[in-house]
Amino acid sequence: MRVYLDNAATTPIDKMVVDAMLPFLTENFGNPSSTHWHGRHVRAEIEKARKTIAELLYASPSEIFFTSGGTEADNCVLWGAVETMQIKHLISSPIEHHAVSHTLEEISHQKQIPLHYVDLDEKGNIILTSLEKLLAQYPNALVSLMHGNNEVGNLLPLQEVAEMCKHYKAYFHSDTVQTMGHYVHNLKETPLDYLVGAAHKFHGPKGVGFMFIRQKSKIHAYITGGSQERNMRGGTENVAGIIGLAKALELAYQDMQGHQNYIKGLKKQMIEGLQASIEGVQFNGMSGNIEKSLYTVLNVSLPPSETASMVLFNLDIAGVSASGGSACSSGSEGRSHVLEALKVPAERPAVRFSFSRMNTPQEIEFATQKLAELYTPKTA
Amino acid sequence: MRVYLDNAATTPIDKMVVDAMLPFLTENFGNPSSTHWHGRHVRAEIEKARKTIAELLYASPSEIFFTSGGTEADNCVLWGAVETMQIKHLISSPIEHHAVSHTLEEISHQKQIPLHYVDLDEKGNIILTSLEKLLAQYPNALVSLMHGNNEVGNLLPLQEVAEMCKHYKAYFHSDTVQTMGHYVHNLKETPLDYLVGAAHKFHGPKGVGFMFIRQKSKIHAYITGGSQERNMRGGTENVAGIIGLAKALELAYQDMQGHQNYIKGLKKQMIEGLQASIEGVQFNGMSGNIEKSLYTVLNVSLPPSETASMVLFNLDIAGVSASGGSACSSGSEGRSHVLEALKVPAERPAVRFSFSRMNTPQEIEFATQKLAELYTPKTA
Repeated sequence: MRVYLDNAATTPIDKMVVDAMLPFLTENFGNPSSTHWHGRHVRAEIEKARKTIAELLYASPSEIFFTSGGTEADNCVLWGAVETMQIKHLISSPIEHHAVSHTLEEISHQKQIPLHYVDLDEKGNIILTSLEKLLAQYPNALVSLMHGNNEVGNLLPLQEVAEMCKHYKAYFHSDTVQTMGHYVHNLKETPLDYLVGAAHKFHGPKGVGFMFIRQKSKIHAYITGGSQERNMRGGTENVAGIIGLAKALELAYQDMQGHQNYIKGLKKQMIEGLQASIEGVQFNGMSGNIEKSLYTVLNVSLPPSETASMVLFNLDIAGVSASGGSACSSGSEGRSHVLEALKVPAERPAVRFSFSRMNTPQEIEFATQKLAELYTPKTA
Repeated sequence: MRVYLDNAATTPIDKMVVDAMLPFLTENFGNPSSTHWHGRHVRAEIEKARKTIAELLYASPSEIFFTSGGTEADNCVLWGAVETMQIKHLISSPIEHHAVSHTLEEISHQKQIPLHYVDLDEKGNIILTSLEKLLAQYPNALVSLMHGNNEVGNLLPLQEVAEMCKHYKAYFHSDTVQTMGHYVHNLKETPLDYLVGAAHKFHGPKGVGFMFIRQKSKIHAYITGGSQERNMRGGTENVAGIIGLAKALELAYQDMQGHQNYIKGLKKQMIEGLQASIEGVQFNGMSGNIEKSLYTVLNVSLPPSETASMVLFNLDIAGVSASGGSACSSGSEGRSHVLEALKVPAERPAVRFSFSRMNTPQEIEFATQKLAELYTPKTA
């Protein structure tokens, strides 16, 4: 048996998504910027995809811009907002994805704009009074706080933060890569300025994503060139990817409540299974709290053991694909900056399991059992 | 009959490319940054693709970086080189693709770095003595000149320019989007610092490309985030796209000479056909010269006529997809900046036909005949 429990890194593509993409990898190959027959048809389909996404998010199609993924979208929004809005202060948290944290560090360094961090409580939740203090103290700010933490599953009270930023006239960007397609976003009600999504986190293809840029918070382009995306992002569109992205988001919304309930059940099963079989098991961040964390993420904190450093390796050999943290930083050295920020003791190994609607209870049972075996002394 | 003669805008994907991509849109869905089984296999295939491309270009795999296309690659290289190399002068031409020209204008504006233009001869060729004069006058320069012009097919003497830049210690970037996969690039012999490619220009998928960054000319990242692409470009890789890119380039090199001869034949057929049927027909830039221009591009200059402004529209209705210029700028207003720079009289309509190995002599005959009909008074 081979079990994939690393859905926060990437998800299997839905077959219906591939089917929707295929015509655009074969007969519908035109360049959407071409005004002739071959191009016009493709242009129409791209605009249909844009409209689909806009409607699902309660946004206007003119506020949706396609990118090559979440990271590019974060870069575009953060640089663009700073260039356009005369930003004087950056406000963020120590547990952001590197797409945001490294970009803000770069902006702060190059533009000499101070970067302030909100305080976290012991579970890694953002302390709202700390944010409010920063907002009151530092005008003309750009705030970037992720909606769902990719490592420990903590959820930001998005509505509250958006309203607070609005009150203090700060621009608010949220990296919503982990919640897009998994939670409802209502951009009519939530007054944030920018959010982003990546198709491959909700059963779409890799290499395509989008940014929402609120009409009143329009920014300069980051990738300049042709007049694609209404001059907001140069470069021939990843047509098949865009079609796949829209299809994947549509499918995600078709029975979101059903998927949520199903996946919550898997997560609950794993929490209970691990608690029953591994003495001293804990859960990092908020991830052990079914109702108050991403239902897709469970970050397991294991008791110290001699084989601690080998746990992911051994799980992999046993047939379970899980992660130690963000896949995006696995090529770099050192420990997860999120677990560092949460002051998780270094001797307790962490394993992130992340779920999707394509996982089964049997897979959860298998993975739980394998992990328990690695942590229970064998009896002869 | 429906004829596609806009291959400089984009090309149909080769079926073998789609077949190579499909497993990475289905079962091989892992994130290449994941260290477990699902990720490792995909990582290996990406590195194989990188090696394939490097070998075809006589480069090192460590000098090839994947991007979302040519435009992003141009942006990354130009901004990165300016940030890293303490560039004091930008040198370019008035006939670059907007991915380069708009980006250089932006850099020049934001960084207050002067942007100098080389002189062109009456056919739009870069005057090398003009380039040399600029290089001698302005030290610490970054030169960006495209290899094959996408609108009028002019070819830069790449080897000579690269050597000249090297002699004057200038960094040299060439937008090789139109020649990649159509001409041999030998990066061991040609001492340029940076070049870029986009898969969809040589029968690969849209939304993926690459940049070559010479080891000694290493630059800062433009899109920051995870440690993908050895910290040179954050963001989960477009895996299927990268596999398709490598496959498409491999196929392009398999019988490049054969494709060249075949496509040259199509272009020659069209030149002769148009000369025989339309009095006063001319060809813009160098494109009428089979040996000294892109064999894929023919930019036709038509005699003034009452229906001049409708020529592309009428061709489209007649079943022929061709272009007035770059597809990337068709969404914007105004006339082609390339034809402007070449001082092509505004009353002579221009039609760009561009060819691929998938076109047939029958299609060329059909398109030639349709264009001739639009320009020959009908006899009752």
